[in-house]
Amino acid sequence: MAQLSSRMRTLVQPHLADIEPYDPAFTPCKINLSANENTYPLPEGVREAIDAALAATPLNRYPDPMSNDLRDQIAAWRGVERGRICVGNGGDELLYNFLLAFGGVGRTLLTCPPDFSEYAFFASLTQTGVERVWRDPATFDVPRDELLDAASRADLVILTSPNNPTGNLVPIDLAREVCRVCPGLVMVDEAYGEFADACTTAECLLDECDNLVVLHTLSKAFGEAGIRCGYVLAASDVIDAFAAIRQIYSVNVLTQAVAFAAVRNRRTFAPVVDEIRAQRERMVQELSALVEPLASQAAVWPSHGNFVLVRLPHASDVRARLRDEFSILVRDFSYAPGLEDCLRITVGTPAENTAVLDALRAIMECDGCDERG
Amino acid sequence: MAQLSSRMRTLVQPHLADIEPYDPAFTPCKINLSANENTYPLPEGVREAIDAALAATPLNRYPDPMSNDLRDQIAAWRGVERGRICVGNGGDELLYNFLLAFGGVGRTLLTCPPDFSEYAFFASLTQTGVERVWRDPATFDVPRDELLDAASRADLVILTSPNNPTGNLVPIDLAREVCRVCPGLVMVDEAYGEFADACTTAECLLDECDNLVVLHTLSKAFGEAGIRCGYVLAASDVIDAFAAIRQIYSVNVLTQAVAFAAVRNRRTFAPVVDEIRAQRERMVQELSALVEPLASQAAVWPSHGNFVLVRLPHASDVRARLRDEFSILVRDFSYAPGLEDCLRITVGTPAENTAVLDALRAIMECDGCDERG
Repeated sequence: MAQLSSRMRTLVQPHLADIEPYDPAFTPCKINLSANENTYPLPEGVREAIDAALAATPLNRYPDPMSNDLRDQIAAWRGVERGRICVGNGGDELLYNFLLAFGGVGRTLLTCPPDFSEYAFFASLTQTGVERVWRDPATFDVPRDELLDAASRADLVILTSPNNPTGNLVPIDLAREVCRVCPGLVMVDEAYGEFADACTTAECLLDECDNLVVLHTLSKAFGEAGIRCGYVLAASDVIDAFAAIRQIYSVNVLTQAVAFAAVRNRRTFAPVVDEIRAQRERMVQELSALVEPLASQAAVWPSHGNFVLVRLPHASDVRARLRDEFSILVRDFSYAPGLEDCLRITVGTPAENTAVLDALRAIMECDGCDERG
Repeated sequence: MAQLSSRMRTLVQPHLADIEPYDPAFTPCKINLSANENTYPLPEGVREAIDAALAATPLNRYPDPMSNDLRDQIAAWRGVERGRICVGNGGDELLYNFLLAFGGVGRTLLTCPPDFSEYAFFASLTQTGVERVWRDPATFDVPRDELLDAASRADLVILTSPNNPTGNLVPIDLAREVCRVCPGLVMVDEAYGEFADACTTAECLLDECDNLVVLHTLSKAFGEAGIRCGYVLAASDVIDAFAAIRQIYSVNVLTQAVAFAAVRNRRTFAPVVDEIRAQRERMVQELSALVEPLASQAAVWPSHGNFVLVRLPHASDVRARLRDEFSILVRDFSYAPGLEDCLRITVGTPAENTAVLDALRAIMECDGCDERG
């Protein structure tokens, strides 16, 4: 995106004059493994249930502001009371409102990059300062002592588990310690939580830590990035603060209807998640074998999400060739600090994964030819 | 809504500690004429087109950030280029983003109350100061000289035409003068514009006034308050500023699909709008006759929207009796400065309008009995 006109740079708030919006870098391709979407078909019967719910939804009335029917479904599922849930227009709205409510001028958000770039975007929109505790460059683990020290001085913390794009988890006991030392609120972003092993969610800390906010979305495991539906779990007075500052009709009637149907049919999604987890292990294994000859020039990290991070030489070029020669889109992170020469590949269907592996093999063999030639 | 907990009042940004969210004061009733929704059925064939569009929409992919297919439909309809349109998650998102982008600490929004209460709510969220030029208490006209004087010093102006809840228009030449004298941006909120006479929209000023933003919604004339879809028309660099600060996926795939189908079928909505206009004139006439015996204690104002404002003694009690004895919900404005003893009644179907008129007659005759008794 080009910068704002000089007129607009004068008229917008000063801190917005140079703002760079989140850029999904989307190019239409036959195979899109760039946005960590769920590329599997909906489980049998779910689309029919969704279409029936949509057809039965009147369009002319304003939505229920708090999505109470949906909250009741989520409450029954997650085992918390309705009053400890707030639904949002995707995780984005909840992330933004977290910073709008509790951040602002003179306050600091602590993050652990490399992580999700929207945190910094929303911090800049709300004029919240950002302090960073960098992950270990080799393992992407968060340095425990440094994190706890910084958290004790932070107004807000966001931990991402599994982390996007590195794929690793925040240990529960570390999340607990962060909540204990932080004088403000701690969000654990579990957008990818359903792809992790059981008992890795920070939700078990909610009763113990009244400054914990756990963020979820239906965009990933539930295959509904298009409808924009996220939710947070937290103490009821934290939820009241989220409710007080939101645009009351932000979650429309269609999204409420689809999300309700999806959550009611939640058990049918388990086999899809299992398959994605199995395919993820296949991707890690085959990618590791593929880059093995490159030794220290390359790496593949284990992942608890629906994506795999891989480092290989000339990653940006490889990404461009995947796109231009094979019509396969993956995400290039090689511009991001700590992620030099890294690509993030969403775990797709078996056929999509085979296609991207075959394409990478072809590109890398060809590179070998060039070097030998 | 109760106030925030003392803990939350400490943790939220100081300017949010006492924020009062917009309250639609909704109570389930048989007849709901409280929210200026369109209570008519969708035109023949439109719901079928919408359901087909929804069924054909994949849910698992992120939305097109800028709603380009929908923008193209709107562009063809309104006769402007795509680059001069930004679509939002209802008018709300666009109003909020207008203040986020161009307001903030040390800047002033000029409004002309009594008008839409969300302007002040979003101003407080964004710490934008509010200056008010009050309308004439009898006619609700905006005092021209006072408005122009204040506009010459304002960073932002919002004019509402037709105005909610008073129903009157801002003359085009006054909107032009405001744009001319205001050093910042001027929004004309035309949420109810389709119910006004032809040639009353400020859109004709867009080429002449590059600081004009015209706000529209599909919530009213198009009967789609539930899907949350609004749009602004403005100079392309203003649109770029809106685009730069928005949450890029704020308009979901379902809303984009429904809005596209509605705008493509826009001609079929004309008879519904004509009927609502005719029913509005009936309401003004019958309400005027009804309150005529009350002389100066009562008033009915002409309206260019899909609602009628009426003043009558003990309005809050009348509203409660309509709700409790007749299951009819109308909006009580008697608490609002300048709107003492005023109710706003949405123009419904002929049967709904008959019901509310009959109920008011019964309540007022009964009052008469009491006084005589």
